[in-house]
Amino acid sequence: MTTDASSVTGPLTIALDVMGGDHAPVSVLRGAEAVLKRRQDVQFLLFGDEAVMAAELKHCKRLAAAAQVRHTSERVLNEDKPSVALRARRGSSMRLAINAVADGEAQCVVSAGNTGALMAMAKFALKTLPGIERPALASMMPTTDGGGVVMLDLGANVECDAENLVQFALMGTVYARILLGKQRPRVTVLNIGAEELKGHESVREAATRLRQIEFHGTFEGFIEGDRIMTGDADVVVTDGFTGNVALKTIEGTARSLGKIAVTAVKRSILAKIGVVFALPALLELRKKVDPKRYNGAMMLGLRSPCVKSHGSADAVSFAHAIEAAIKLVEENVTRRIAEEIQRGATAEPAAVNAAGL
Amino acid sequence: MTTDASSVTGPLTIALDVMGGDHAPVSVLRGAEAVLKRRQDVQFLLFGDEAVMAAELKHCKRLAAAAQVRHTSERVLNEDKPSVALRARRGSSMRLAINAVADGEAQCVVSAGNTGALMAMAKFALKTLPGIERPALASMMPTTDGGGVVMLDLGANVECDAENLVQFALMGTVYARILLGKQRPRVTVLNIGAEELKGHESVREAATRLRQIEFHGTFEGFIEGDRIMTGDADVVVTDGFTGNVALKTIEGTARSLGKIAVTAVKRSILAKIGVVFALPALLELRKKVDPKRYNGAMMLGLRSPCVKSHGSADAVSFAHAIEAAIKLVEENVTRRIAEEIQRGATAEPAAVNAAGL
Repeated sequence: MTTDASSVTGPLTIALDVMGGDHAPVSVLRGAEAVLKRRQDVQFLLFGDEAVMAAELKHCKRLAAAAQVRHTSERVLNEDKPSVALRARRGSSMRLAINAVADGEAQCVVSAGNTGALMAMAKFALKTLPGIERPALASMMPTTDGGGVVMLDLGANVECDAENLVQFALMGTVYARILLGKQRPRVTVLNIGAEELKGHESVREAATRLRQIEFHGTFEGFIEGDRIMTGDADVVVTDGFTGNVALKTIEGTARSLGKIAVTAVKRSILAKIGVVFALPALLELRKKVDPKRYNGAMMLGLRSPCVKSHGSADAVSFAHAIEAAIKLVEENVTRRIAEEIQRGATAEPAAVNAAGL
Repeated sequence: MTTDASSVTGPLTIALDVMGGDHAPVSVLRGAEAVLKRRQDVQFLLFGDEAVMAAELKHCKRLAAAAQVRHTSERVLNEDKPSVALRARRGSSMRLAINAVADGEAQCVVSAGNTGALMAMAKFALKTLPGIERPALASMMPTTDGGGVVMLDLGANVECDAENLVQFALMGTVYARILLGKQRPRVTVLNIGAEELKGHESVREAATRLRQIEFHGTFEGFIEGDRIMTGDADVVVTDGFTGNVALKTIEGTARSLGKIAVTAVKRSILAKIGVVFALPALLELRKKVDPKRYNGAMMLGLRSPCVKSHGSADAVSFAHAIEAAIKLVEENVTRRIAEEIQRGATAEPAAVNAAGL
């Protein structure tokens, strides 16, 4: 029943898990409403409690007109283990939204619910692309040069071998080409030093292989944690444990420094005056590094795209996740990743020969 | 020949690797000179090139009086592998400084040189404490509540099992008691979720064991990357790979955000005016989170203390590393860690019994 999204014709349709996330269903429905102001051609399938949705849809006129409501009272809980969710939540809003993509009714699913459950269900129902061992969670992050960087895996796979990391690199390359518009993204592997002899064996092996194969990116070796956001890389590849720690450490450091700065400013009357002058620039800055703009992590390596919104997303933030989903469908990310993996698998012997080995 | 630092009598003596670090020897010598302004009772052994030192010592009157120069023209290079440094740099300034501690001539060594070489040499020459399998690199980091947090391992051990992590927790507890002055530090293990079922097996096993044993801290379970700096923990335990990535990610995020902020302010005349008003508060803030203040990572688990300064340390920063070393000697960190490990090893059956198992 699994259909390649790129083969679906008809209007662009996104399936939404309306019950997932801290601020659901309001954040989900108002997010979709906001998207419809800019994109009248998108349709939505809304999975969740009909009565709960009905009340909110009164405030979302565009969405009420452009959406089909699919009722279910079942939902995935935050504390559900992935295995339990997979077995016991087959009628949940999350699972039904995923099924709609598997059945070809929609081209992408967006959920702000339980990450582990979403990944397990999506992998099971949407299936991985041929040649892909494990899907990975990828996201864009801001960089100091005003661009952005694609980082993966952000938590889908705690243990990764070299082959997994190489596949992440190939998938991340496609994603960076689409999101950053770069012809040959600069691909790096996260490590604790630039030297070849440092880090886990899997990381060193992956680097060796990435030097040998031909793909649509340029492999630039290892990168350390302090250069993730400097604009030195377009793709940062890492295992899901390290990636998740790094992602959350970036979020936490940004928030902590902001808090320390606010405390320092609050204690000084002069500084408060200064802030009034600096306000427009500060708001501009805030917009630039606003995590809301970077909401929408993508599960790469599935036969159809699946987008994970941050659990704490509000409507603005959720709208960004939907827009990420639209872009993935329109840019045929699934088909392009399949091609890149195919290419990576076949190009290898030639590349090795070319290197005179 | 290895002597417990706590048994050494006579003046407090620190051995310095004068040739290690990006700004050596000036940063090292001026750092020591700065310390002597506050602490006239400290003595130094200076290992490095006599001629190079002589020129700089003319500007460091106090140090010239309070130090013995030990000449060597050999030094550890940044690109030396640990194994090579261990074998081939036996006459280097780093190794001789470490030997001075092993021989009881000094109570602590400080170096801003090659981290891998320093760890290998220190482990070999100073030996680990009884019961300690692997030493760990620990450091203080700033928190939003104005306190600080001890994080380890920051890169000494790429692969760690549960037992290693438990020992890091015990060592980190002692270090936090000394540095933060807390009777019962709150100890956490870095993971990608608060739930018991997430993360590497080693991490989950370590948590189970830390719940069972009695020690001088309170085990508070898992912590995620976004809460390292929030003041929710006094000790964050992790393997050296993840710890190093997290540490550098914190440094990099802080630097990147600072750069983005400066760019935003520079583009706005109003904001520039604002900065003038806010300057005192901003300088105060800078001082609070200044990485220089947090310089000086400690190798915990050795029979004598060894402090690693950041390679890019200037004189101010290096002075902080020396002061960290002095504190470690005066607070008998080595003896106290030995006691805690001993206690952890013996207290376990009792604790298990008390829990009714």
